[in-house]
Amino acid sequence: MLLEEIQNKISKQKLDAIIITRNNQFLEEDIRKEENLLQQISNFSGSAGRLLIYSQGNAILFVDGRYELQAEQEVRSKIIVHCTANKLSFTDWLKYKLKSYPCKIGYNPWCLSIKEVETLQKELPQIKLIACEEEPQLSPQTFKVFEHNIEYAGISSEEKLSQVINALPDKKLDGILITAPDSVSWLLNLRANCLNNTPVMRAYALIDKDGHISIFADNLDFSEIEQPNFQRYRFNELPNILKKYKKKTLGISRETTPYQIKRISEKYKIELINIPEICQELKSQKNEVELSGIRKCHIRDGVALTKFLYWLDQQDITTLNEKRIINKLHDFRAEQDLYYSESFDTIAAYKEHGAIVHYHAKEEAEKNFTPNSVLLLDSGAQYYDGTTDVTRTIMLGKENQELIDAYTYVLKAHIKLSSAIFPTGTSGIKLDILSREELWKHGMDYNHGTGHGVGCFLNVHEGPIGISSNYSQTGLNKGMILSIEPGYYLANRYGIRIENLVEVTTSTIKGMLCFSALTLVPYEQKLINIKLLDTQEIEWINNYHQRVYNTLKNKLSKEEKTWLKHACRKIGE
Amino acid sequence: MLLEEIQNKISKQKLDAIIITRNNQFLEEDIRKEENLLQQISNFSGSAGRLLIYSQGNAILFVDGRYELQAEQEVRSKIIVHCTANKLSFTDWLKYKLKSYPCKIGYNPWCLSIKEVETLQKELPQIKLIACEEEPQLSPQTFKVFEHNIEYAGISSEEKLSQVINALPDKKLDGILITAPDSVSWLLNLRANCLNNTPVMRAYALIDKDGHISIFADNLDFSEIEQPNFQRYRFNELPNILKKYKKKTLGISRETTPYQIKRISEKYKIELINIPEICQELKSQKNEVELSGIRKCHIRDGVALTKFLYWLDQQDITTLNEKRIINKLHDFRAEQDLYYSESFDTIAAYKEHGAIVHYHAKEEAEKNFTPNSVLLLDSGAQYYDGTTDVTRTIMLGKENQELIDAYTYVLKAHIKLSSAIFPTGTSGIKLDILSREELWKHGMDYNHGTGHGVGCFLNVHEGPIGISSNYSQTGLNKGMILSIEPGYYLANRYGIRIENLVEVTTSTIKGMLCFSALTLVPYEQKLINIKLLDTQEIEWINNYHQRVYNTLKNKLSKEEKTWLKHACRKIGE
Repeated sequence: MLLEEIQNKISKQKLDAIIITRNNQFLEEDIRKEENLLQQISNFSGSAGRLLIYSQGNAILFVDGRYELQAEQEVRSKIIVHCTANKLSFTDWLKYKLKSYPCKIGYNPWCLSIKEVETLQKELPQIKLIACEEEPQLSPQTFKVFEHNIEYAGISSEEKLSQVINALPDKKLDGILITAPDSVSWLLNLRANCLNNTPVMRAYALIDKDGHISIFADNLDFSEIEQPNFQRYRFNELPNILKKYKKKTLGISRETTPYQIKRISEKYKIELINIPEICQELKSQKNEVELSGIRKCHIRDGVALTKFLYWLDQQDITTLNEKRIINKLHDFRAEQDLYYSESFDTIAAYKEHGAIVHYHAKEEAEKNFTPNSVLLLDSGAQYYDGTTDVTRTIMLGKENQELIDAYTYVLKAHIKLSSAIFPTGTSGIKLDILSREELWKHGMDYNHGTGHGVGCFLNVHEGPIGISSNYSQTGLNKGMILSIEPGYYLANRYGIRIENLVEVTTSTIKGMLCFSALTLVPYEQKLINIKLLDTQEIEWINNYHQRVYNTLKNKLSKEEKTWLKHACRKIGE
Repeated sequence: MLLEEIQNKISKQKLDAIIITRNNQFLEEDIRKEENLLQQISNFSGSAGRLLIYSQGNAILFVDGRYELQAEQEVRSKIIVHCTANKLSFTDWLKYKLKSYPCKIGYNPWCLSIKEVETLQKELPQIKLIACEEEPQLSPQTFKVFEHNIEYAGISSEEKLSQVINALPDKKLDGILITAPDSVSWLLNLRANCLNNTPVMRAYALIDKDGHISIFADNLDFSEIEQPNFQRYRFNELPNILKKYKKKTLGISRETTPYQIKRISEKYKIELINIPEICQELKSQKNEVELSGIRKCHIRDGVALTKFLYWLDQQDITTLNEKRIINKLHDFRAEQDLYYSESFDTIAAYKEHGAIVHYHAKEEAEKNFTPNSVLLLDSGAQYYDGTTDVTRTIMLGKENQELIDAYTYVLKAHIKLSSAIFPTGTSGIKLDILSREELWKHGMDYNHGTGHGVGCFLNVHEGPIGISSNYSQTGLNKGMILSIEPGYYLANRYGIRIENLVEVTTSTIKGMLCFSALTLVPYEQKLINIKLLDTQEIEWINNYHQRVYNTLKNKLSKEEKTWLKHACRKIGE
């Protein structure tokens, strides 16, 4: 759909502007390409953003720091990019720019959470927000639902249900509505192929006070599920089922529930009670079976990456391009046991492309590489027993001192946080500076978070935990999985990022937690300046490399093993 | 006043309980001893706390982590201590303990801020809060007001007034009321001898929209002020003057204004508009003249401390006691130019007394020392050109490995934060972990903040800045003054704290700030384990000691200079 078409529609509806978000009634990051209205209008392909389209003239695209460069390069004319990192947030922008300009702004109430709409209503009293849609988005395709076997999930759906009910802050609720697909998938131990990279079953779940579950979804094929422990409804039956809660109470999370649910509830006089998203909290702390699977899938992922890195090392650099690298890496991963899919579209960003934090190779990537720069390779997979996400920055050709020092500083930031010791319950917002401050010393920084939570055969970005300077207040506990991924980006030159997934575990010091690396892939020894490292950092790298080698060596060919041994050689000897 | 008397009074007023705070209508930390109702009832002498007295039976004393040990030791029977560090806050305690117990609790509306009372009202709907006092506390004594000379203050009162008016978020206010004495003192460039350690003039200031200032105070002698730029009123005239704002708007800060102002305003239909405490914000960033004075007073303070440390080194340890140390240190400081008073009661805490974070020597301190433990010495002064605050931990007698290692880890935490580089506007809540994480690695921590803002010939604890894990959201900027004071405390054994004041200044890296130490006093070389330090830490200590020696050497006697040279000798040579 073209910008002009939308603008005509807005004018007809007598709106001054409309907000277009990059999601649907599931409010998730991963969506199907054909659902991405924001991209269709703006050409922006990033995983987060918001478009404010005026009835005439321009549209403003709001993106975060990761997408500043990419958005500028991708968007169509008439679309102005506003980056919210270190500048005005979306809400503040509206607040200041539309200060003395009362206007009507349309939005899709399925695509913004209750919290988001209520914040806009509160902060922008001069703006009248008009809900423009009544019907949720439905896919014409059908997707197969399958069980996430107990040997990977660890806990039965029945047990999870009682955990959820036990965790309810208010025992007198008449029901709770869960709208986040990863929470519903986790609760029911079900998955589906609705999306390319995320095996969630896209559905809402309503749990009544007796523990009966109703599922709302349209395009799901449940034929393989033998004994469903739920009643199934179509999405358009939701209002009618909710109607039964007239004058009763329904627990929802304001942060994950679309505003449309509030509109339906108001219509039927249902009292919505804001409760924490209990499934999200419960699933962030992985159980022993999940942890065991996650550790195992990281070994297979390390084998695939090692095979790929060995292959890469054999190639003539001038025959390589980003697409070829993405395909080859995919092939190595796909050979691994329990492989299901990639966990996101691989980022293979050579040279100046690396400076675009979430770069995705396009046509121009077909151009082959010219040697002597770095390849930023951020990739991951969904295995039935866990989800991986790893970034390595690889020197192709001859290194130079600038790249060596920048890489070493990023590696120091990565090690500094990876080796932190902290009391149980410390939040990620506090830990963030441990990485960042290593770079600040050299006038460096990165315009994105330091880490995110990771699901188990679910979303590769999973809340509520994270490591960031402006969110992630949730305290960390044993069994949580996070990424640690500081970086450094020099526009038009290169990008460096070094990312491991880590497990939060108890340290040898009483009451203290630490991180244990799950990812098993060597760092780029060509780019390590040992003179910039202290003895503890050298020891940390050597211990990590020894563990990588010992864990992977018997799963490789003779040549790959020799290559890995060299890649994991001791430094500072 | 005895607990029982209060309880009788409560019963007569048909209250279930009463809240007693440790301040008066100025809501400040420093008070006169005779005003300390909380201490008179409980015997607790700490600088912060709250007492909840039930009409019958017990009373609960709420203190923070600094005072946990001290409160337990000091309080009278029938008083139960609740430490809020890592446990329930005062509000949460009331919320949970009095959950299903509707009751009437009395409080003095002069002694709690609008924010505090409104929070209690909001969080505790089942509790009826009853204001028990109408009149503010007045001292029978008279205190002399004097000018804070422009050669120290740097900016005239007139210029400060226009800064305040320029900074008003809403230009249409009919007036603003400033109730914090340090803000009023800063604004008018006036000081008074109302308190022993803090030279604030205790008064409220009302600024009308034309910039006219009215001062409310009872017991101040203004005879030395030649050309007052304000109108003076007695405290009990405040309601009558406020009455003139009937149906008009008055700007106040909810956080620093007593709730009684809201009650008066409601009576007279004055609309209170919550604004930031502008004087507090403006004075936190010191001007060039103030900074120059602050740097100079730290040289004199360093001279006094060096003379004291030299003297201490000459003494037979068994002839020393805490009171003698406090008096001697006072004498050395009082000899210095521009000395006005101490900035707080010196903490001289030997051996197990050191584990009481804010210990104050009492009768038992008259006992002389037995050698081979550490003296924690936290002290400071008010000079006309600045305020100092420094802690050193001194080995008296023969050191042992446990003390050496503990001291060295605390020193590492102190250096780590002192040498941080961070972007302009980074808040103290983010920096806190840089100190703490050095100790967490060894299972150590401290139950207090890492640093506080410091006034210029004003409060030694000055908001809004700070370095703490749970407050201090305010961003740091060039010209701010903070303490950096990590510690380690082992109950019944010893306490270690190492504190410098630092100035926030621009670093050599563009856009980045750093700290520059103001305090000039050597660390305890007997307690430094060089094997636990990395080369950067060794270099940091050597640079600091060289600066201390070079700055102070010509202001000392020959013997003192020789002693300082040894105390500042290079390590790791």
